[in-house]
Amino acid sequence: MRTHACHINVRYAETDRMGVAHHSSYLLWFELARTGLLKEAGHAYREMEAEGRLLPVIEYGCRMIVGAEYDDDIRIDTTITELRSRAVRFRYRAWRGEELLAEGWTRHVCVTTDNTPRRIGDDVTEAIAPWREEAVR
Amino acid sequence: MRTHACHINVRYAETDRMGVAHHSSYLLWFELARTGLLKEAGHAYREMEAEGRLLPVIEYGCRMIVGAEYDDDIRIDTTITELRSRAVRFRYRAWRGEELLAEGWTRHVCVTTDNTPRRIGDDVTEAIAPWREEAVR
Amino acid sequence: MRTHACHINVRYAETDRMGVAHHSSYLLWFELARTGLLKEAGHAYREMEAEGRLLPVIEYGCRMIVGAEYDDDIRIDTTITELRSRAVRFRYRAWRGEELLAEGWTRHVCVTTDNTPRRIGDDVTEAIAPWREEAVR
Amino acid sequence: MRTHACHINVRYAETDRMGVAHHSSYLLWFELARTGLLKEAGHAYREMEAEGRLLPVIEYGCRMIVGAEYDDDIRIDTTITELRSRAVRFRYRAWRGEELLAEGWTRHVCVTTDNTPRRIGDDVTEAIAPWREEAVR
Repeated sequence: MRTHACHINVRYAETDRMGVAHHSSYLLWFELARTGLLKEAGHAYREMEAEGRLLPVIEYGCRMIVGAEYDDDIRIDTTITELRSRAVRFRYRAWRGEELLAEGWTRHVCVTTDNTPRRIGDDVTEAIAPWREEAVR
Repeated sequence: MRTHACHINVRYAETDRMGVAHHSSYLLWFELARTGLLKEAGHAYREMEAEGRLLPVIEYGCRMIVGAEYDDDIRIDTTITELRSRAVRFRYRAWRGEELLAEGWTRHVCVTTDNTPRRIGDDVTEAIAPWREEAVR
Repeated sequence: MRTHACHINVRYAETDRMGVAHHSSYLLWFELARTGLLKEAGHAYREMEAEGRLLPVIEYGCRMIVGAEYDDDIRIDTTITELRSRAVRFRYRAWRGEELLAEGWTRHVCVTTDNTPRRIGDDVTEAIAPWREEAVR
Repeated sequence: MRTHACHINVRYAETDRMGVAHHSSYLLWFELARTGLLKEAGHAYREMEAEGRLLPVIEYGCRMIVGAEYDDDIRIDTTITELRSRAVRFRYRAWRGEELLAEGWTRHVCVTTDNTPRRIGDDVTEAIAPWREEAVR
């Protein structure tokens, strides 16, 4: 199984008055990580959208363990924990060095630009299959 | 049981190129809703912070059902589904009229400004108890 | 001359680790204020977009005087300082009670959905004219 | 004169329903660019804050020329157009390849953590002087 690594640096604007990154920031980082995985698999999401294959987030969750601070270098490790013809679920872990800061997931269904459910397409599901975890948590 | 109603209007900046509110926006609306419930209970979060009682989000989840559009009037209904001496869990439902757009939750633990766990305090837990749901989902 | 008043409450997520609202937040508040003025004038921006009359921001500026804090009630006063057939400039002042926190402006040109310049239309320019300041600063 | 180059990739969440990056996004990118310049000069802003030398934005402006789209690779070129003992002004240009998308600026004054004006310090002003433009626009 492959894991996609995405590197981000915490923006000042992402912190709040508690001094750490606001909990909503993780969703934006997860989005970057997911975008990176798809691109590495040869299917840039931008192109998928142009082809009429959208993958809106329909469900998400996140657990914060340690706060991320301004200018921290964070690595988001991404894998896939569910891969169906019309749905996909990504799992993310945010690391600062050896320290796990947070873990989360997003679930997506594939729709057309008119919001009608459709198949993701074998070209994409096969291309991203290497990042699939064997055992779904 | 009481339900706190918070009214928001979807900002242009909250939409993304799919034309609907970005999925992270719900967390910001939930934050407003939670702030409103605490204020209605007589314990503005701003004052709680000044007293050294912080309630950071340690876990959250959200399920999107229908997209919220720019300038939509949304009502966030908030209740409490867990109320302990050191932790609290809020439940949110986002409505556009009679239509349920999304539902989510956040879990919080109480800490000092030094991030040490502490009790929320009976004054607050008693004040917010009326918004507690009987049956936790 | 009329002045449009828009009331906002500073969100927790809008603060940064300096403890005050991030300087970019003002642009989001100005957007709400502008949206409110257009709506009060009978031309909701949402409808203008549906009619193919977009008003993208092409230039903006802001000067911060005093920081806005979490949960502050802010009033944004909006007027118009330039009103042409194809362009409009709004001026904003952010107040916390009697205290001026910031002032800014945005300039917009009217375009079609294909990004081609077009006239705003007399119906809109006449409707918003009452908010126009006599002397442009 | 040196120019600092900062590379960013437009996030999905940064776009709005017009399909391009929201005009407030530039301020976040400028912040990353400024952070990068300071770090390259040997004075990470994170450390400056720890030393009690804050550089809040007190004024800013931006002019948008062409819209930035999702997943675009943007380069922000940063220089300094004013460098005083207590204030500094940065100038930014956002490029997509050879195409200028936007240009903007931010002005900062140096304050202590108690918000009292103070000198930036010769160590920092000398370190960032190589990025200063000769002719201020």
